[in-house]
Amino acid sequence: MSKIKERISALRRFLEEKSLHAFIIPSTDAHLSEYPASHWSSREWISGFTGSAGTVVVTREKAGLWTDSRYFLQAADQLKGTDIELFRDGLPNVPSIDEWLGQELGKGESVGIDGIVYAAKDAFNLTVKLNKKGLHVISDYDPFDSIWHDRPQIPVNTIFELPLKYSGVSCSDKIKQICNNLDKEGADSLLVASLDTIAWIFNIRGNDVKCNPVAVCYAYISKKETVLFIDPKKLTQEITSYLQSEGVVLADYCKIFDYVSKLTNTTICLTGNKVSLALYDAIPKDCYIIDIPSPADLMKSIKNPIEIEGFRNAMIKDGVALVRFYMWMEQAIPTEKVTEVTIAEKLIEYRSQQDMYVGESFDTIAGFRGNGAIVHYHAMPETCLTISNDSFLLIDSGAQYFDGTTDITRTWALGEVSEQMKKDYTMVLKGHIGIGTCRYPQGTRGSQIDILARKALWDNGLNYLHGTGHGIGHFLNVHEGPQNIRLEENPTTLQPGMVTSNEPGLYRANQYGIRLENLVLTQEDITTEFGKFYNFETLTLCPFDVKPIDKSLLTELEILWFNNYHKMVYERLSPYLTESERDWLRDKTNEI
Amino acid sequence: MSKIKERISALRRFLEEKSLHAFIIPSTDAHLSEYPASHWSSREWISGFTGSAGTVVVTREKAGLWTDSRYFLQAADQLKGTDIELFRDGLPNVPSIDEWLGQELGKGESVGIDGIVYAAKDAFNLTVKLNKKGLHVISDYDPFDSIWHDRPQIPVNTIFELPLKYSGVSCSDKIKQICNNLDKEGADSLLVASLDTIAWIFNIRGNDVKCNPVAVCYAYISKKETVLFIDPKKLTQEITSYLQSEGVVLADYCKIFDYVSKLTNTTICLTGNKVSLALYDAIPKDCYIIDIPSPADLMKSIKNPIEIEGFRNAMIKDGVALVRFYMWMEQAIPTEKVTEVTIAEKLIEYRSQQDMYVGESFDTIAGFRGNGAIVHYHAMPETCLTISNDSFLLIDSGAQYFDGTTDITRTWALGEVSEQMKKDYTMVLKGHIGIGTCRYPQGTRGSQIDILARKALWDNGLNYLHGTGHGIGHFLNVHEGPQNIRLEENPTTLQPGMVTSNEPGLYRANQYGIRLENLVLTQEDITTEFGKFYNFETLTLCPFDVKPIDKSLLTELEILWFNNYHKMVYERLSPYLTESERDWLRDKTNEI
Repeated sequence: MSKIKERISALRRFLEEKSLHAFIIPSTDAHLSEYPASHWSSREWISGFTGSAGTVVVTREKAGLWTDSRYFLQAADQLKGTDIELFRDGLPNVPSIDEWLGQELGKGESVGIDGIVYAAKDAFNLTVKLNKKGLHVISDYDPFDSIWHDRPQIPVNTIFELPLKYSGVSCSDKIKQICNNLDKEGADSLLVASLDTIAWIFNIRGNDVKCNPVAVCYAYISKKETVLFIDPKKLTQEITSYLQSEGVVLADYCKIFDYVSKLTNTTICLTGNKVSLALYDAIPKDCYIIDIPSPADLMKSIKNPIEIEGFRNAMIKDGVALVRFYMWMEQAIPTEKVTEVTIAEKLIEYRSQQDMYVGESFDTIAGFRGNGAIVHYHAMPETCLTISNDSFLLIDSGAQYFDGTTDITRTWALGEVSEQMKKDYTMVLKGHIGIGTCRYPQGTRGSQIDILARKALWDNGLNYLHGTGHGIGHFLNVHEGPQNIRLEENPTTLQPGMVTSNEPGLYRANQYGIRLENLVLTQEDITTEFGKFYNFETLTLCPFDVKPIDKSLLTELEILWFNNYHKMVYERLSPYLTESERDWLRDKTNEI
Repeated sequence: MSKIKERISALRRFLEEKSLHAFIIPSTDAHLSEYPASHWSSREWISGFTGSAGTVVVTREKAGLWTDSRYFLQAADQLKGTDIELFRDGLPNVPSIDEWLGQELGKGESVGIDGIVYAAKDAFNLTVKLNKKGLHVISDYDPFDSIWHDRPQIPVNTIFELPLKYSGVSCSDKIKQICNNLDKEGADSLLVASLDTIAWIFNIRGNDVKCNPVAVCYAYISKKETVLFIDPKKLTQEITSYLQSEGVVLADYCKIFDYVSKLTNTTICLTGNKVSLALYDAIPKDCYIIDIPSPADLMKSIKNPIEIEGFRNAMIKDGVALVRFYMWMEQAIPTEKVTEVTIAEKLIEYRSQQDMYVGESFDTIAGFRGNGAIVHYHAMPETCLTISNDSFLLIDSGAQYFDGTTDITRTWALGEVSEQMKKDYTMVLKGHIGIGTCRYPQGTRGSQIDILARKALWDNGLNYLHGTGHGIGHFLNVHEGPQNIRLEENPTTLQPGMVTSNEPGLYRANQYGIRLENLVLTQEDITTEFGKFYNFETLTLCPFDVKPIDKSLLTELEILWFNNYHKMVYERLSPYLTESERDWLRDKTNEI
């Protein structure tokens, strides 16, 4: 804790030197990543808070962290003893950052942000809001270059090609399609900073970010040339030849600003909240900017048949590994010391035995008892719970395979199941089935169907505050856009080929957490005189715990879906299992 | 039809005189009303299309009408033989107006709009889009002043006060509250052009627009003064005294532009799509404009206890009138000639016998057989159908009473009911009950619950393209914002005191239409550790036809809601009925 106080003091000295009165430190990097490379983990470094979302603001006297409901409990815990105040985003009467700065600072004072890691759109919005309060925004400094002495370098790991047999469409074909889409928007070029988008376009993968197989780089795509800005240290002879054969021009990572600043009289398509302020500002004034969601991101979200086939294969491998893991867990909990950390380790062990396994797609969340109610809980060896025969154990985990990415949550009732546990679990299951069985017309947005995951909970005065579903990359980031299923509006419609998670939950603080998650694929269903209808195919293959189900609370249709799902899990996984594993799975997938 | 052609020719001559190449004629007026006074019905005059929503565009060679799904059938019918092409908004591959103009006109050509009747925000968006296509927008002309020879004058009917016993809150108190809300937004004043908003703020009502008890006027509200811009011919001695006693300054209607143009160095709150371009442009450049949804509109939508009490009383009166009407209808259809037009007349007759009846809240939609599938059908004496003992009869009607506004739709099965009719009707009823029984947390938007009205339909490959619910005024416009329940996103949350319609439907072209509509009041339900939850109280009191219900398709909860609703209808209405009417209603509200 004293370390955190020292770091904040160092930042305050920096503020005084530069005549700043506050500094805003977002959780992101120069590419607006959800999970940044450690070079850019300055928000974690300054606060000790390790969650994936959160913004720290330091004034000369005070400091605050703003984060969302997923991290309320974790943040409160990690901020203990730091003098950093926790602001719970989204709760009533919690001031926004600009409101708080308006209270804390005096007219004419200055707020610093690092333009390199601040999304252009966010910076514009912030500037408007702070200007209204008489405050200035200064975006010229990265204080961490001077105050963070052992700051890690920007990573330079080598990249590799994702072969056509996994990617399904060649880089040059994707670029052609992007150029067609740019034409429709009236744009000459596309400027991309998002690492997963670049990885998808160029069919490359990297190792620069934990769990996210991406490489730090920028791209500029126009009908004239396609340039990949990447540190040459990351390139092998092989990948250089591959990229050149796809017509890609290679330039050093640091040259992007220089390149962009020399563009002239051209119309550039970019996404204002996916490009840094510094890069946006580097564009000369004689260029026209079309700020829209990236056409490449929508293309990426609509998986091609090879990618979908890869997802199906990955699900079988993941399912087999999970059967083995759960078989181990069942016998281990009563007989040996199993902790939340052991669970994460064992999951890696079983998954790593599978073909084409690369690594975890995110840090496993294994939350026992009250830890399950911490939505993005990360168990630490020193503090993790030992699993015993009571309460719920929530396990949210996933893997990266060359042919697909997985993300699955199951919640297991250990020991006695109370009436409240049964009812809670069954309401979450009803929500999960509500999404799983939903038919919706072409043009439907995720926010329109979100209620199907919540209705049973709402009817009982229950709720969860996180989203119901996020898009998922193909051997890429476990969270990707542009579609999602959330309370909040998102104009992207659900389209055939999109893979999205279906993960309602319920969290009783200090008691337990429940979340049930499968990945689902949007597919065409029926066409009638009233239009085209879509539905979801569930991709994930793993039984649910049936013990905490109160069958009397399920409708006939819900029971039918559940039994059919379990039947499919057994049919798809059993060919890959040993006899004893098959017996175990048959038992777990019996009809309810 | 030849009249329409002549009018379009006159407009084309006007285009040539003014060196314009196209003119866009929206359906609205200087106040951006949904239903304009006849002076502003230029879109209807030029095209013959009488729907409430639609935009005509005339170029030197072509003409088109853009309208939404409610009016597809009606518009196709009314445009027959006019050379005006119908563009069905919202269907795939239908160009938007700007796209179409981009195709039809050459670079450098000019598109005219009348800035007096064009919403400022729409004009800005249009200008950006047309400029991108190399087209100019000219907003200086109202062609109809010269080409529409017998154009009606702007109405000058006298206005009257809505007494405190009906309005619930005095004008001066409302102005105080508005000023408080302006403070919160950092604004000095509010500029209002919306007629219903002004009527609500000042507790005045008028007769300038059919079915909408509003008066043509503008208002400017600031902490210094509140000015009502209204033609002095509309003011009696009494209303002048009343307004002055509330601290309102009176000015002539036409003085608004002059007044606004003399404002200096002030921050004005307005709503860009509720204020005309001409009025917006009259604001001097040294004023700061805050363009947000009007704080007065949100205040208006949250009904106060007196207004809610008024709604309840109006519902009883309307319910009694409807019992008498349906009793008449039942015996009349087999014995005398009953047409779609007779139905509208009889509804007025029965409703006008009720206390404090003012008039219809909209033109009755009585659609028999295929006419019921025309969502905003308006029966004409020459062409209307005679009701016989078959198919569905859809009746959507409402009334204005001094103490409230009603809007109700029932669909009656006459004669034999086919299996398809039963299933269709029951699916719509399930949707209606889905909204009626919905519990939702504080902060929920209408678009989130809309699916509850559609789920049963979607599950069967059915759908309707109109909204599920609109806000409704208190003795004011039958359609009011800001909340609604629709497929489309709307950031307004549903808040206690809001009255909204619940009207799912199903339309089989050339066969029949089904719509079931009640008005519902958002109210507080329960509060748990997961937050505050709201639900709906159904206000409308009228039995549904039970004959076309397939009870086997309803859940126990749906049957319970239905029987409870019918029980409430009987209990609330029976004290006001004669014995024979009571017997009839008891029979109609028997448990299913």
